[in-house]
Amino acid sequence: VNGGVGFGVFSLDGDEPRVGFRVGHGVLDLAGAGLGDVFEATSLNPFLALGRSAWESTLARIDRLVTRGAEFIPLEQATTHLPFVVGDYVDFYSSLEHATNLGRLFRPDAEPLLPNWRHLPVGYHGRSGTVVVSGTPVVRPCGQTKRPSDDEVRFGPTRRLDIELELAFVVGVGSRLGEPVSGSAFRDHVFGVVLVNDWSARDIQAWEYQPLGPFLGKSFATSISIWVTPLALLEDRFVAAPAQDPEPLPYLRVRGDWALDIELEVELSGTVVSRTNARGLYWTMPQQLAHATVNGASIATGDLFASGTISGSEQGSEGSLIELTRNGAHPIRLGDGSTRAFLEDDDEVILRGRAGELELGEVRGTILPARCPRNS
Amino acid sequence: VNGGVGFGVFSLDGDEPRVGFRVGHGVLDLAGAGLGDVFEATSLNPFLALGRSAWESTLARIDRLVTRGAEFIPLEQATTHLPFVVGDYVDFYSSLEHATNLGRLFRPDAEPLLPNWRHLPVGYHGRSGTVVVSGTPVVRPCGQTKRPSDDEVRFGPTRRLDIELELAFVVGVGSRLGEPVSGSAFRDHVFGVVLVNDWSARDIQAWEYQPLGPFLGKSFATSISIWVTPLALLEDRFVAAPAQDPEPLPYLRVRGDWALDIELEVELSGTVVSRTNARGLYWTMPQQLAHATVNGASIATGDLFASGTISGSEQGSEGSLIELTRNGAHPIRLGDGSTRAFLEDDDEVILRGRAGELELGEVRGTILPARCPRNS
Repeated sequence: VNGGVGFGVFSLDGDEPRVGFRVGHGVLDLAGAGLGDVFEATSLNPFLALGRSAWESTLARIDRLVTRGAEFIPLEQATTHLPFVVGDYVDFYSSLEHATNLGRLFRPDAEPLLPNWRHLPVGYHGRSGTVVVSGTPVVRPCGQTKRPSDDEVRFGPTRRLDIELELAFVVGVGSRLGEPVSGSAFRDHVFGVVLVNDWSARDIQAWEYQPLGPFLGKSFATSISIWVTPLALLEDRFVAAPAQDPEPLPYLRVRGDWALDIELEVELSGTVVSRTNARGLYWTMPQQLAHATVNGASIATGDLFASGTISGSEQGSEGSLIELTRNGAHPIRLGDGSTRAFLEDDDEVILRGRAGELELGEVRGTILPARCPRNS
Repeated sequence: VNGGVGFGVFSLDGDEPRVGFRVGHGVLDLAGAGLGDVFEATSLNPFLALGRSAWESTLARIDRLVTRGAEFIPLEQATTHLPFVVGDYVDFYSSLEHATNLGRLFRPDAEPLLPNWRHLPVGYHGRSGTVVVSGTPVVRPCGQTKRPSDDEVRFGPTRRLDIELELAFVVGVGSRLGEPVSGSAFRDHVFGVVLVNDWSARDIQAWEYQPLGPFLGKSFATSISIWVTPLALLEDRFVAAPAQDPEPLPYLRVRGDWALDIELEVELSGTVVSRTNARGLYWTMPQQLAHATVNGASIATGDLFASGTISGSEQGSEGSLIELTRNGAHPIRLGDGSTRAFLEDDDEVILRGRAGELELGEVRGTILPARCPRNS
């Protein structure tokens, strides 16, 4: 049984998509239930833009509807869609364990953690136009690769297709250009969270990423949950984040408990291959937001800010295959006896998150064979 | 007299914005002239999505209207707006001279050109939500910096605020996820070009950019022209691009002349400080498009693909101050006798482009003083 509580976009029998709220196996039709025209939109964006008091009053009204036995549409009758129009997509690198593991693999001859890492939440912009909803198949990307041991540049399907287990926050209320958003204003701007699979072609990435960062190694697809879980439903899951050393600059100091206690797991073709928790992330969401806007950059409704891969310190808690398999050197064994260094065609990956009683919307994706250009 | 021929969005006396075509000092109201409802939109996007035959028939109809003496609205009566809703913003690094110059400055102890540079058009995603239209003031960004010689991380207004002179292409017709767009399909997807000023805070960029690329050093603002110049008006400006060595992989081989012979200049507070030409770019626009989609990434209406800084090989032909001033060591002298290593508050920068008889829309921006967060 797959769970997931939150707001999403669904349609019935080819009708126009509209906004719904999922609980368990059913979807509540919010426009149909009389909650307002804003839910007749084909994306969550108009609702997201309304702001915190509207978000909370809507949840209170949903709560009353559910208590009174409102009718739910069975989930299997609903076609689901990308829940919101993605503005900008930013991907951070906020797990100390992941950054250390990747640094070791990508720069074996240097200090794994670069000097800036403990001073600021390192991040970059990804491709928002290729953010897709859970269930969308992922075509294995083609591209250039060159290992240090290769004489020539090669072209072809990636041979090191990977996942990244991430948690992202979704912006509701935007800000004005030139005006930083402080970490303490986080809850006034941010509506909720989704799980993210930031699919990665490690061989393409390794060859292209210097000096301007990942591009084609990531831009072919990024999958998010169907259902956006409002922060207001996660109030009891905020816990203290790991201690930071050195103490960050004042604009990155945010009072209160800002780590999210959400248990996470990665299932690969039927076998759970990793279990971890989002609470271990070094940089918190309000710090990420304060950093991303401290230069005056504005945010907008639908902006997606992902954590970066979430890895724990123990074996079996890493959020990517490159870490789980030690760069492919130690393949993992699946329940059917087969092994994986990286993803194979037809593999299905499912990311799941659980916050106590509440399940986040899962993120599913199946790998389709490559379709390289003919003239390559 | 400032020129600029192309499509843009304007409004009169607080009315709803609509699409216009500028020639010289006047704007043709395309909806008013009966060219179709698509021009009543508040952005060019619906028109861009129509495709090449609609773009060309529209230009033919505009040509007839102009020949018959259609009435133009005087430019000074029109309020102008961002011409299109920006999808994803990609910034390349396609000038050999610029990449070499920057490599020398950012990595003084290594080969300036990284091994991948001659094999693929290096690029990354920028922030689309902070793309602004010419004339929008730019607030000096605040951020973290740390020079190798500094003991501590500093926070404050950038002291190395710079420009980047670029030319960008604007996507009209999108593509499907999972299906690469070949270079030969370039003209079916791409509508036109704009000049771009990719404002850059060099000190913020230098501290943050490893290993995931530029982020806050660029994301505070990127300025584009008011007027988008259709490729169809630049037919006679396509010339042979520089020879490439080594020959690129087959997917990057595109027949025909694909460099654009557009003369460019940078004016800084009244003095022209750089003159160059877009035709010297090593990687061409169809190569950039073929590369950006070879992994199956889709493109969408309004996507903006910028060239990266355009620098020539001679002194005074560099497209950024960091190059013109040799990292600030050799300030340039302005007409009023003052000197600049980097931009000062109240400086105004104007980028101009000329393709024979035709002027591209200029890009203007003035620097406002920093507004750092109080708690920093």
